[in-house]
Amino acid sequence: MASVLITGASRGFGLALVRELSSRPASEISKVFATARGESSALSELAAASAGRVSVVQLDVTDEVSIRNAEAEVETQLSGKGLDILINNAGICQYVSDGVKSMDNLAESLTVNVLGVHCVTQAFLPLLQRGSLKKVANITTSLASITLARASHDVPTPAYKISKSALHALTVQYALDHEKDGFAFVAIAPGWMKTDLGGGDIADLTPEQGAKASLNILFRPNGEINGQFPKVLVPGWEHATGRNVYDGTMVPW
Amino acid sequence: MASVLITGASRGFGLALVRELSSRPASEISKVFATARGESSALSELAAASAGRVSVVQLDVTDEVSIRNAEAEVETQLSGKGLDILINNAGICQYVSDGVKSMDNLAESLTVNVLGVHCVTQAFLPLLQRGSLKKVANITTSLASITLARASHDVPTPAYKISKSALHALTVQYALDHEKDGFAFVAIAPGWMKTDLGGGDIADLTPEQGAKASLNILFRPNGEINGQFPKVLVPGWEHATGRNVYDGTMVPW
Repeated sequence: MASVLITGASRGFGLALVRELSSRPASEISKVFATARGESSALSELAAASAGRVSVVQLDVTDEVSIRNAEAEVETQLSGKGLDILINNAGICQYVSDGVKSMDNLAESLTVNVLGVHCVTQAFLPLLQRGSLKKVANITTSLASITLARASHDVPTPAYKISKSALHALTVQYALDHEKDGFAFVAIAPGWMKTDLGGGDIADLTPEQGAKASLNILFRPNGEINGQFPKVLVPGWEHATGRNVYDGTMVPW
Repeated sequence: MASVLITGASRGFGLALVRELSSRPASEISKVFATARGESSALSELAAASAGRVSVVQLDVTDEVSIRNAEAEVETQLSGKGLDILINNAGICQYVSDGVKSMDNLAESLTVNVLGVHCVTQAFLPLLQRGSLKKVANITTSLASITLARASHDVPTPAYKISKSALHALTVQYALDHEKDGFAFVAIAPGWMKTDLGGGDIADLTPEQGAKASLNILFRPNGEINGQFPKVLVPGWEHATGRNVYDGTMVPW
């Protein structure tokens, strides 16, 4: 009977999470709050077909008023119950033309990918504390491992990598502060997916594969995943080569 | 005959770096550009007594116009020569009252400690490329090791830690991009010092100890330190316990 809130649910991986969660029995997933900045016909259709289990909520992670309004709406819909799971999925991936020295989008990446997650988490933390599962997933990428940075140097997205490294540090600060209350704050790397943010058709995984595998991580016991940075485990991809191995191991920071 | 530019040189560790460098023979350090946001009588006195070797330059790392003006002034003073060393020292350390959930200063920490370093580095990179030493030190803290975050969880400065973790990711992006040109971009943790930003009298090291030990790292061959995160080595502190060991080892990200 878990309730889940997902940011950035209008398309891609976020939409796949909503689809996967709402396809599960109501005894397992009672409610999905699918938040997005703007309109999404795909999401609206999913909600319309969900018999009330999927609610679309307007939320722009860079707008504090929008966050506050979304929190109030979710609280009302929960009628006194807590929120069980928060998935901070909204994010941007920005490219540069000539290396990090040409990077003019770091401020924007930090605003969305780090400050956005912090503001949303701050706002929903009281509801999560009243929830029974106490799980927060921050969606990230193994490209943002500083330790393994050389292996992904050919991907020209320094602002994305740097902002997600900062997100890792944020995740661990929340994890250490709230483990005593039974929380899991986990940085999940769902893999290189065939989404607009990801790689289109040349990428490794479908968003559905990424969603299923990410939820497998998230539903593990909180003590096993709190403050961790796991890769997904995807059948058939455990023994791939290079950075595109999806074997469920922890990524070094 | 090296020229050096240090940001945040009005006091504390930055001022100690200026003092240490300007005390060395002119055959070793020809010029120190000591930059600061505002007036500093300590810095002005040091410059006045330096027989022209220390130049004070106004620079606010959060103000692009100020950065451009400082770069133009330094370029003029160098009369066609390059800049050899950049030390990105300016930074802020902000506290919270009730854990990361009460953190309301992350944007400001990211602006100064990450975007400030990026903007200054971008602006001075052409001059550094004409320099002969090609060294950039980004001053950081071992508190910002995500891997060792648990050991420093009692220090209530999450915005400082998170922003410095992002600075590490930025440092490594620069390091990977520019190693082919012979550069070293290194994140140096100078230790817990008796400065306003640090711990006052209860801290471990004097700023002079931190400055000498940091310069020992910076003057190592570029290939040994590029993209690394070393702690300082301070005689008498190699065998201390806990996080206050200064044994010159690399800190894990």
